[in-house]
Amino acid sequence: MDIATPATTREDALARRYGGADAAPAAGPWNDTIALMLNHRSVRGYRPDALPEGTLETLLAAAQSAATSSNLQCWSVVAVRDPAKKAELARLAGNQKHIDQCPLFLVWLADPSRNARLADAANTTLAGLEFFESFLVSAIDAALAAQNAVLAAQSLGMGTVYIGALRNRPDEVAALLDLPPGCAAVFGLCVGYPAAGAEGEVKPRLPQPVVCHEERYDAANEPALRAEYDQRMAEFSKRNEMAQATWSERVIGRLGTMKALNGRDRLFGLLRQLGFPLK
Amino acid sequence: MDIATPATTREDALARRYGGADAAPAAGPWNDTIALMLNHRSVRGYRPDALPEGTLETLLAAAQSAATSSNLQCWSVVAVRDPAKKAELARLAGNQKHIDQCPLFLVWLADPSRNARLADAANTTLAGLEFFESFLVSAIDAALAAQNAVLAAQSLGMGTVYIGALRNRPDEVAALLDLPPGCAAVFGLCVGYPAAGAEGEVKPRLPQPVVCHEERYDAANEPALRAEYDQRMAEFSKRNEMAQATWSERVIGRLGTMKALNGRDRLFGLLRQLGFPLK
Repeated sequence: MDIATPATTREDALARRYGGADAAPAAGPWNDTIALMLNHRSVRGYRPDALPEGTLETLLAAAQSAATSSNLQCWSVVAVRDPAKKAELARLAGNQKHIDQCPLFLVWLADPSRNARLADAANTTLAGLEFFESFLVSAIDAALAAQNAVLAAQSLGMGTVYIGALRNRPDEVAALLDLPPGCAAVFGLCVGYPAAGAEGEVKPRLPQPVVCHEERYDAANEPALRAEYDQRMAEFSKRNEMAQATWSERVIGRLGTMKALNGRDRLFGLLRQLGFPLK
Repeated sequence: MDIATPATTREDALARRYGGADAAPAAGPWNDTIALMLNHRSVRGYRPDALPEGTLETLLAAAQSAATSSNLQCWSVVAVRDPAKKAELARLAGNQKHIDQCPLFLVWLADPSRNARLADAANTTLAGLEFFESFLVSAIDAALAAQNAVLAAQSLGMGTVYIGALRNRPDEVAALLDLPPGCAAVFGLCVGYPAAGAEGEVKPRLPQPVVCHEERYDAANEPALRAEYDQRMAEFSKRNEMAQATWSERVIGRLGTMKALNGRDRLFGLLRQLGFPLK
């Protein structure tokens, strides 16, 4: 497996995605769209080049073409290009320089507030908006939409990276972007052309039998398969000059302490302050 | 616009997606992947035909290639083919016959339980799992993964429809699929070949300026644009032999009453029972 050049066959693409041919599933149906997905890497370094005219409109049309529960369309997006605003968002997200660098930063919003305004205009109220489900369906639909935008960007030669760290300070993000009550950022997305060397090796994922269960959930083989994946991820880390650590060690580092949460322990309370009753 | 045949140009695809050329944005960058996305329709009728060997593995590889926050990979999926189990899931989802019909039904799970087991095996605990963020990032990552699977299926000539109604009875779904504590279904997905006539007209979405805000949230033009969209959706409903209703009327019907929630007002409490502290 020569990791310096793109995958040319489905077997090679699968081997890269699972960290070795021995960990990959047997190759099934295949085409260029699927090959594009398998080749996904998050990009954390961007050239300053502007995007072609109409790029935002195309990404939005792709995003809006994703399914949305009962056609409620309860998500929105703020497109940020202003350098000062991007710098402020980069700071709120823990000083992520790629937010400064990328020519287009998209802030994806769980946004049932539009449906609330629609009801106001019809002199009624929506009983459903009080409930946790209202926030959840908005966040899920925002994610479905964003993933279409991600693939559309990748198909156009652009790179992206999701910025979950906007959930560290959702109140400050809402104030910066003038969000109305009942509307909150669920994640950001950098969009731009990857800087030289910014597209690294495809990151291996857990073996399929760990993630996919047939007919019923069954984790009996999980410990052995996790141990194999831990070893593969330690090798990936070593190859990529990251601190050599297993996957298990990285998960524990990310979730093990309050400090590592970077304030996200406050998220539930802050969403309530932002107008989601979350009953 | 002849709605009986597929779109052949980007202008036509955009006009269909927005319910008319006058509502569509100016055409930007374009390719076959983006055209595939624009042509998406939810499919609620399936042929009984089995899927080609390796289809599940390909859909999973596509799903696992989506980004996942800090590589935590806290989602799982249960692949259901057993007719009796599909029938039971169809019943739990309010008697949706397409769940019975489709040869493959995927239940997408918010699943931080795997990370909890990993910590157990290392004789530690994960402080982060107590918090609402843990459920939310799991649900978002499940959605990103599922959307890749949806597009992969569509690229292979298959149809899909998301089943949010699994959130009506998450406790019964968990019992049926033997889910461990800290793991819950966030939605289902039917996969199969569309029955004749089951792929309808592309459903028009809100105009882009309603959904996308530049630099800051601004709903000043929303009422006028919503009124235009209401009219377009009333025409869509009439063309498709649905009760002629505006979008606003449909949203109010879907969210206006407790009855229309189909039990989802209980979701927050049930998720707590299923092992998500949601602090």
